Amino acid sequence: MSTVPLLDVTGAVRWINETGAQELITSLIETLESDFRRWESFERSPRAASHSRTGVIELMPTSDGLTYSFKYVNGHPSNPAQGLQTVTAFGVLADVSSGYPVFMAEMTLLTALRTAATSALAARFLAPPRSHVMAMIGTGSQAEFQALAFRAELGINSLRVHDTDPHAVVKFVRNATSLGFDVHVAATAQEAVEGAQVITTCTADKTNATVLTSAMVPAGVHINAIGGDCPGKTELAAAVLERAKVFVEHTEQTRVEGEIQQMPADFRCTELWEVVVGSHPGRTSSEEVTVFDSVGFAIEDFSVLRHARAAVSGTGWVTELDLVAEPVDPKDLFSLLSHDAVTQVPYAAHRTGAWSG
Amino acid sequence: MSTVPLLDVTGAVRWINETGAQELITSLIETLESDFRRWESFERSPRAASHSRTGVIELMPTSDGLTYSFKYVNGHPSNPAQGLQTVTAFGVLADVSSGYPVFMAEMTLLTALRTAATSALAARFLAPPRSHVMAMIGTGSQAEFQALAFRAELGINSLRVHDTDPHAVVKFVRNATSLGFDVHVAATAQEAVEGAQVITTCTADKTNATVLTSAMVPAGVHINAIGGDCPGKTELAAAVLERAKVFVEHTEQTRVEGEIQQMPADFRCTELWEVVVGSHPGRTSSEEVTVFDSVGFAIEDFSVLRHARAAVSGTGWVTELDLVAEPVDPKDLFSLLSHDAVTQVPYAAHRTGAWSG
Repeated sequence: MSTVPLLDVTGAVRWINETGAQELITSLIETLESDFRRWESFERSPRAASHSRTGVIELMPTSDGLTYSFKYVNGHPSNPAQGLQTVTAFGVLADVSSGYPVFMAEMTLLTALRTAATSALAARFLAPPRSHVMAMIGTGSQAEFQALAFRAELGINSLRVHDTDPHAVVKFVRNATSLGFDVHVAATAQEAVEGAQVITTCTADKTNATVLTSAMVPAGVHINAIGGDCPGKTELAAAVLERAKVFVEHTEQTRVEGEIQQMPADFRCTELWEVVVGSHPGRTSSEEVTVFDSVGFAIEDFSVLRHARAAVSGTGWVTELDLVAEPVDPKDLFSLLSHDAVTQVPYAAHRTGAWSG
Repeated sequence: MSTVPLLDVTGAVRWINETGAQELITSLIETLESDFRRWESFERSPRAASHSRTGVIELMPTSDGLTYSFKYVNGHPSNPAQGLQTVTAFGVLADVSSGYPVFMAEMTLLTALRTAATSALAARFLAPPRSHVMAMIGTGSQAEFQALAFRAELGINSLRVHDTDPHAVVKFVRNATSLGFDVHVAATAQEAVEGAQVITTCTADKTNATVLTSAMVPAGVHINAIGGDCPGKTELAAAVLERAKVFVEHTEQTRVEGEIQQMPADFRCTELWEVVVGSHPGRTSSEEVTVFDSVGFAIEDFSVLRHARAAVSGTGWVTELDLVAEPVDPKDLFSLLSHDAVTQVPYAAHRTGAWSG
């Protein structure tokens, strides 16, 4: 029997806890960087999205020619009101040469890790030096992961947070304090950004909101814009984007889903991989405003899946999934089945044939 | 903990054996028919295909607005030489309103069942009345399932088979005989089709082969063409298609993948659902040649997944998969993780920042 190793939720929790979430993110940033360095060697197809009144279900495939990956992910903003996660996900790695799945994982946690690690990778090239205060507008499910990633990458330990949902603020303060962060709760977004070198926007509203106006954004900051990630959902005023140097993952996708959906089709932006490989500069002065307009891309899911696979293979965090039928003779799929149980059934011929001769 | 019911290979084998493969196909034909009747209510997007030198990996999504499904499936013709299946598959059903996955299943066996049941559904409207002999060109993994489906639908018990691989013939004769079929082994495809009312072509070569020439096809037969299912892979001579009335699943996809890829872009064909709902006739005379140019479509996978889910829910054939992270507070994903293990890790700031201020 050929089985597929599965990192389920329990396994992922154990892997993250026993490794340490911040340490895991630290090494994941390196895996992401190495995949961003070979960005052009990946298939970069659009996600296959199925939209409904309440949300979206997406399949995000990619391949580097040796390994294929896809992620199943939903986005349903009204889920929390029913006690459900806005975003849940799982994903698969497969061997391109045989087409066989070789690894499956829950990806609700893994997506939070990779999103945060990608933000940190962008900040490596875009944040002002000696950043030590981050403002966070939005303190939902992603917030703690973002905080850990910026501490891992930049050493930021001081957070100024704001959310319109006081419950989410209380939750974040409790978690972040126990993680050792110094947290200032701000009454407004305006207050939150005061004195911050990095601003992370990560709100959940599925609307064209304005979390940051241009007047709120001081010169020299880096904006890590996470929450504008689907058509009709943005967080930054257009004037902020006009002032800033904007960096994206995959331009074609970000023009539809990201903050720059507000801008003309020829609005200038730089893909992050170009900065990582050195073909385009990141931050070049202490005065400029940089924006990482992050919507998430399939290559990041590939990275976290291969990172997880390498880390958990052969450990007790993994269970085995009996998902691939494998008869001894590959042309004899039917050998898996009994030949006895099927012969007594009378046929149901000529029940509803449309033409009777 | 929210779990996802999984019908794994062991569970699927037990379900099929304990139900009886032929009886299962008989009821699956009805499920397929009911979904073909509401064909236009489904999302019909193209599959997301990732091609490589050795094969293809595809994601096939669809939705009826309440339930979403997708199938992961590979096609690797050289796999059997390595002892692997040409086609393996698994699939998922999800709740459109929440985006949560609600059922997962192996689909190597389920695909064989749904392909055969779809062929039988087409034959219900296209095969000549009183069909009692089927020729089968190609006796690989799909052959037994096809034979059972045609016995279930038309009562065919007499098979005339040919395959260029003698090993596959021996395998098929062994299985089909024990299933109660009367099997005649033909030295050539020409010999196999003699006296048959239905001809099933199901070979595995990834080439534009000619399994059937026009001279080999007598008036009045129904051709169930299964094996021409990707670009560059066909089995019928163009002259057969020119003479015949051709029926397809989803025209846009079949023009790329099916037998009719050989024909001009305006070659006339009828979608099977139009016949099922009665808006277009199936067979209308005893002289015409009909062809079901089957390549498989996502709605058929939807059908077999919902059929399986209804049949196996709450039974011992199903196991539970811990795939969806579900914190008590949906905005507190981080609550799943320990807060202790992450505070001691030193940050790795300013390692490779591109700009030093």
